[in-house]
Amino acid sequence: MTSICSDPEEFAEDQLAGFLDLHADRLSGVTGGVVAHRRGAPRVAVVLGGGSGHYPAFHGLVGPGLASGAVVGNVFTSPSAAHAWSVGKAADEGRGVVFCVGRYAGDVMNFGIAVERLRREGVDARLVLVTDDVASADDVTERRGIAGLLPVVKALGAAADEGLDADGVERAGRDAVAATRTLGVTFAGCTLPGQAEPLFRVPAGHLGLGLGIHGEPGIADVPLPTAGGLADLLVERVLAERPDAAGNRAAVVLNGLGATGHEELLLLWGLVAARLRAEGLELVAPAVGSFVTSLDMAGVSLTVTWLDEALERRWCADADSPGFQRHSSALEGLVPAPTAADAATLDEPPLAAPPAVALGATVRELLAELHRTMVEHEDELGRIDAVAGDGDHGRGMVKGTTAAVQRVDAAEGPAGGAWLLGQAGRAWAARAGGTSGVLWGAALEAAGASLTDDRDAYRADDALAAVQAAADAIVDLGRASEGDKTLLDALLPFLRALRGELDGGEPLVDAWAAAAAVARASASATARLRPRTGRARPLAEKSLGTPDAGATSLALAVGAVGEVLARRAATADVSDDSLLATTGRTPA
Amino acid sequence: MTSICSDPEEFAEDQLAGFLDLHADRLSGVTGGVVAHRRGAPRVAVVLGGGSGHYPAFHGLVGPGLASGAVVGNVFTSPSAAHAWSVGKAADEGRGVVFCVGRYAGDVMNFGIAVERLRREGVDARLVLVTDDVASADDVTERRGIAGLLPVVKALGAAADEGLDADGVERAGRDAVAATRTLGVTFAGCTLPGQAEPLFRVPAGHLGLGLGIHGEPGIADVPLPTAGGLADLLVERVLAERPDAAGNRAAVVLNGLGATGHEELLLLWGLVAARLRAEGLELVAPAVGSFVTSLDMAGVSLTVTWLDEALERRWCADADSPGFQRHSSALEGLVPAPTAADAATLDEPPLAAPPAVALGATVRELLAELHRTMVEHEDELGRIDAVAGDGDHGRGMVKGTTAAVQRVDAAEGPAGGAWLLGQAGRAWAARAGGTSGVLWGAALEAAGASLTDDRDAYRADDALAAVQAAADAIVDLGRASEGDKTLLDALLPFLRALRGELDGGEPLVDAWAAAAAVARASASATARLRPRTGRARPLAEKSLGTPDAGATSLALAVGAVGEVLARRAATADVSDDSLLATTGRTPA
Repeated sequence: MTSICSDPEEFAEDQLAGFLDLHADRLSGVTGGVVAHRRGAPRVAVVLGGGSGHYPAFHGLVGPGLASGAVVGNVFTSPSAAHAWSVGKAADEGRGVVFCVGRYAGDVMNFGIAVERLRREGVDARLVLVTDDVASADDVTERRGIAGLLPVVKALGAAADEGLDADGVERAGRDAVAATRTLGVTFAGCTLPGQAEPLFRVPAGHLGLGLGIHGEPGIADVPLPTAGGLADLLVERVLAERPDAAGNRAAVVLNGLGATGHEELLLLWGLVAARLRAEGLELVAPAVGSFVTSLDMAGVSLTVTWLDEALERRWCADADSPGFQRHSSALEGLVPAPTAADAATLDEPPLAAPPAVALGATVRELLAELHRTMVEHEDELGRIDAVAGDGDHGRGMVKGTTAAVQRVDAAEGPAGGAWLLGQAGRAWAARAGGTSGVLWGAALEAAGASLTDDRDAYRADDALAAVQAAADAIVDLGRASEGDKTLLDALLPFLRALRGELDGGEPLVDAWAAAAAVARASASATARLRPRTGRARPLAEKSLGTPDAGATSLALAVGAVGEVLARRAATADVSDDSLLATTGRTPA
Repeated sequence: MTSICSDPEEFAEDQLAGFLDLHADRLSGVTGGVVAHRRGAPRVAVVLGGGSGHYPAFHGLVGPGLASGAVVGNVFTSPSAAHAWSVGKAADEGRGVVFCVGRYAGDVMNFGIAVERLRREGVDARLVLVTDDVASADDVTERRGIAGLLPVVKALGAAADEGLDADGVERAGRDAVAATRTLGVTFAGCTLPGQAEPLFRVPAGHLGLGLGIHGEPGIADVPLPTAGGLADLLVERVLAERPDAAGNRAAVVLNGLGATGHEELLLLWGLVAARLRAEGLELVAPAVGSFVTSLDMAGVSLTVTWLDEALERRWCADADSPGFQRHSSALEGLVPAPTAADAATLDEPPLAAPPAVALGATVRELLAELHRTMVEHEDELGRIDAVAGDGDHGRGMVKGTTAAVQRVDAAEGPAGGAWLLGQAGRAWAARAGGTSGVLWGAALEAAGASLTDDRDAYRADDALAAVQAAADAIVDLGRASEGDKTLLDALLPFLRALRGELDGGEPLVDAWAAAAAVARASASATARLRPRTGRARPLAEKSLGTPDAGATSLALAVGAVGEVLARRAATADVSDDSLLATTGRTPA
């Protein structure tokens, strides 16, 4: 919905006022809209128009290489004939005016009246209707105009810049319309300024097929496909409308409807581009972005314009407007950087002695259990982290443990446990990123370095030393102290408890279980702490009453390790003090 | 929420793949991110980095005049040190690398490790931390980085282009950081890919003050102000942080957080710009758009960078990246178009005879009642229109009647009713726009032309002729027929009934009331029709069972006229057959 609004009835006027202020160096306001500043020899004026709510269509596409002016109506409402006339009159440089609008009843009527009136006054006025929406009618000439406006106005603006007369510019526009097809889908409806409810809703888990750009519902609601399924749907239906005699070079516009994020568009672009190329199309200067929007509608449309030589030249010509730029000079003479050494080479495991290989099997089992635990608790950790943080902790722990497991799974043959821990730590840090990723990665690396793969056996003291090394790495890197509401508030009490239990003569499995219980209790107790470091600090008050997410996941992790130790103890055929290396019963 | 997604865990990688495909003419993928293609003499490499979810930050800001590369982490998660190192290594042209990241624990740690490692390898690496978020800490050096990244990377890129060494580029970046302050607010939280629930919610009718860009909740929830109040809040709090020795020239960035529409930003810009200028600032090349986003968060931030000579030169320097462009050549030599004749001049009413002036009083009363009725029914008409249309009909009727009433109120002195109807019609069409606006405007104009201001009296037959003229105008202009599910399906039955009642000898007030009842019934009966013309046609099936919005408002309108006639009849001192001109009781 619209959150920034003074008077809903004045929304269109108010946004236009801000636009005119911002771009006073390139255009001026006139009654009914905007007109670009001029340069050089007079050219045929290209004037766009339509309702507000579609920015950068229409006034954001005014500038060199694009439109000479735009008529700005109320939200989703055709401008009046008087306003179309007024902007056309102001934009005319003496060589005529070509209006370009989507084929909607109100626009056709009002711009038609303006064209007649200008002609009566001696101005050579024309009207080009954009009709790219394949879902709006079977008959091509009866279709509505949506994001296909972009290649059409690009063709019109470039043709005007080439110095063509009104006939030529109009023809360039009509050729572009004839070569252009669009299909759109919507994920969520839009809400008019001042309204609390959207104009329509798409059922959960569905998309509206063939939406327009005025908040109309789609022609059908279909189950929301994966990104690949969406790419299939868009590409198949648009290519099915390929005009007769179309070649294999195409301008492509992947257009966001307003609320759909740019990274979602980029993700979809990768899939759409591959499918278009698989169909034999050569993609020329594709455009991905939000060019013809529908207030805060979530959705996307795919436009293909099949190019001939003139259309390709005009599509690629330079342009500069608030909402669309193309500057060939910026890309001239660029050469790729020399290929850098790839940092992600997969090391082969060094040879390791049997005890280290047995330790390796334990490491694999520990990491798998760790991963299972984090997957199980991902949502819970996210919720805890969202109270005063960015809510990504559960996701990060899953990513990290996934990367660690994948890395040790990818290491073929008999790998030592210390080497595997180091590899797992690096993979964890590389894949999970973030504070917790780098700390956990360093901790695993340090634990591996502490254990080494050259021992005769691995005993409880080695486990303690490994935990100590991990804790030291985290303290060194994170520069936090106990009480700062970080994972140290679970890790350091755990470490002290583990040492105490082992000093008291408890076997590792029992000592670990007791220390894990301390970690759990200590993590819960962080709820009464205020964060003193890291991102959460400014939100200290909000954090009170909620435990630290990193301490919570640390407690879960040592608990998971305890589970594995207990399972192994139950089936062990060796003494407890070398339990860490136990590989299970000796095969019969 | 995210609708286009294959695997939530791969979202960052998948969007990066699409990005690399799209921009293969200007940059290449390397382990951990992207590196720009090169041109000309080697320059100090400027490398941005951070989590995904902030597009165009960070990879969308790579290109000539901006960054040489970007490290791309998982959503809201710092990239790993290995990835930062890898991108830095690939971006280095032999003159050193200046990394630039927001001051977040994970980023500081990982990029710090990468800097150390590059230095050990002989690369002159530096790290510039962005700390513009005034809400994140009182101590300037402990603040986090948000949209202030844009002026900082602009300064770094331009300084590198100027050929400065690593010292000089780093200093340019630190100077920009020291001069930059940002405050952000949020209207609605963002949702991680694959999640159904947002990371946080802002209470209805509130905004979160001082949000970050990672889905953190704000530091306080305050009642949502008007757009002007929001501008006050942002400007006051940012200017309160003006650095010592700051001048009066400033770069300004009004940044959308993701889901906030561009037209909302433009509207706010108009208000923010006026307040900044009122505080004595000269605004230099301001930027309004979504540059540093937070997935689909709704919100906005205001950044001010106080400029010295070097900073201003660097802020204004040319740049070309997917997410930010500046090309001074596009604006060189532009001159405003000659001022066109203004189409909205306010005509003085011509002299009119007393009967026409009396008719004018009736016209004013009729229009006021029409306006009141449309305001009362705005929501209902919008809901009906939204079923298979764009939901703007109620809004359009309110805008049109508002404009008509304002126009007749603005005409001072004794104006004739026919002239007033013509003025009202033109104002209605100009202000409301859209199909219904142009049709209603033409209908009022035609009614006025039919009545003329030169009669001795205005009788029932004159009213009938005026309605006939209005209907003819609508048929001529709209090219629809009865049965097409338009306002004609109420208007034409109304006209036939009115003629029949008058032919049968009924006085106007009774004839009108009977015909208005026919219009109501006919409007309701349009529910069983399928639309055959106009925008709603492709949605014919959805429309079944709902009456036509235009027919419904037409019936409401003739009902409103009937109310006025009945009121006047109850207080009339003249015969019914000149009721249309009745001005009420003769003053005593």
